[in-house]
Amino acid sequence: MILCDIGNTFLHFYNHGKVWKEEPHQLSSKDSSEVIIYISVNEESTKSLLYSHPKCFDLTPYLYLDTAYKGLGIDRIASCLAVPNGTIVDAGSAITIDTMHNGIHLGGCILPGIERYRELFSTIDVLDCDFNLSVDLDAFPQNTQDAISYGVLKSIVSMIAQSSKGKKIYFTGGDGKFLSRYFPNSIYDDLLIFKGMQNAISTHITSRGIKL
Amino acid sequence: MILCDIGNTFLHFYNHGKVWKEEPHQLSSKDSSEVIIYISVNEESTKSLLYSHPKCFDLTPYLYLDTAYKGLGIDRIASCLAVPNGTIVDAGSAITIDTMHNGIHLGGCILPGIERYRELFSTIDVLDCDFNLSVDLDAFPQNTQDAISYGVLKSIVSMIAQSSKGKKIYFTGGDGKFLSRYFPNSIYDDLLIFKGMQNAISTHITSRGIKL
Repeated sequence: MILCDIGNTFLHFYNHGKVWKEEPHQLSSKDSSEVIIYISVNEESTKSLLYSHPKCFDLTPYLYLDTAYKGLGIDRIASCLAVPNGTIVDAGSAITIDTMHNGIHLGGCILPGIERYRELFSTIDVLDCDFNLSVDLDAFPQNTQDAISYGVLKSIVSMIAQSSKGKKIYFTGGDGKFLSRYFPNSIYDDLLIFKGMQNAISTHITSRGIKL
Repeated sequence: MILCDIGNTFLHFYNHGKVWKEEPHQLSSKDSSEVIIYISVNEESTKSLLYSHPKCFDLTPYLYLDTAYKGLGIDRIASCLAVPNGTIVDAGSAITIDTMHNGIHLGGCILPGIERYRELFSTIDVLDCDFNLSVDLDAFPQNTQDAISYGVLKSIVSMIAQSSKGKKIYFTGGDGKFLSRYFPNSIYDDLLIFKGMQNAISTHITSRGIKL
């Protein structure tokens, strides 16, 4: 059994503790006896997977999350299913911050990803500079580079802190490791989505004897 | 005496309590006996002003601000000179947040302007929607539109709150009036830059008998 999280840029795979990513138009061939269980936010990349492998299974209908949120992305649902209590931060091209309490999703918010902020400032002449990722968030900035780095990082960190209300924070995604360093009560886990998928498989598929 | 703040898009004028803006290539002709005292962040627009009016005076060398900040824009300097104590928020295409204490500038930071955030999200398919500017900042969002509106507005509001530390906040700029509604201890003042210019004129020019 191989797990696959199909994003907008890459397909992320998990198999026996190994994680890797592939581009949609350069998918490697895999053991044809293995089933690939997937979730997807990208239709085109899903087609590529289905074309490349004979046994694929869409897990989407089995991902039940107790939430009032309308339109929650399937990848966010999967991450939340891995964390019964705590705040989940997926820091990629967008930063999503979701809060779980006793297995219930309380809601979530979205900020631009760090690189998107940088691209945005690069369109304003006088503000086009790299971020200083080690800027001190406890002292007033004293130059332009620090002023935009502080603005971006402190606003992201504040939003995460306010959402978590001191509870444990689970980071995932490309900038997750970097952001986790601002929070002692946090962990970085790049397997979060796959853990949520595994939970759904155990609860709704394996335990019911459904054959994939 | 006419005051002029030359920005990147418009030239803003002040004369006897009247404020108006003009585009750089459509400057109205003004009473040629009046001197126009200006500051500028845009060289091309400055040339347009100088070409359109015979008596112009650059106030830049007379704007002294006590600060360790390197490269502070002349418009931010002018606003700060109007506020000896407090936080100054200029909310335009970028949002600058500066802190003054007993006439000394302690530092400042920069965030994208609200419209820039919207443009940024519009480049991400599933996040391309208008902001809900009346989203509740005290409740977890329950749909995509609220999730991005909350993310953007709450991160801006939090940054301003943290910078102000409860002291008075002076808003200016296009989105200043809107943002000021989140802070009871604040005022919106679209004359802030002109007040700073007037302070500099009184202190360093009129009082010394310098003839313009």
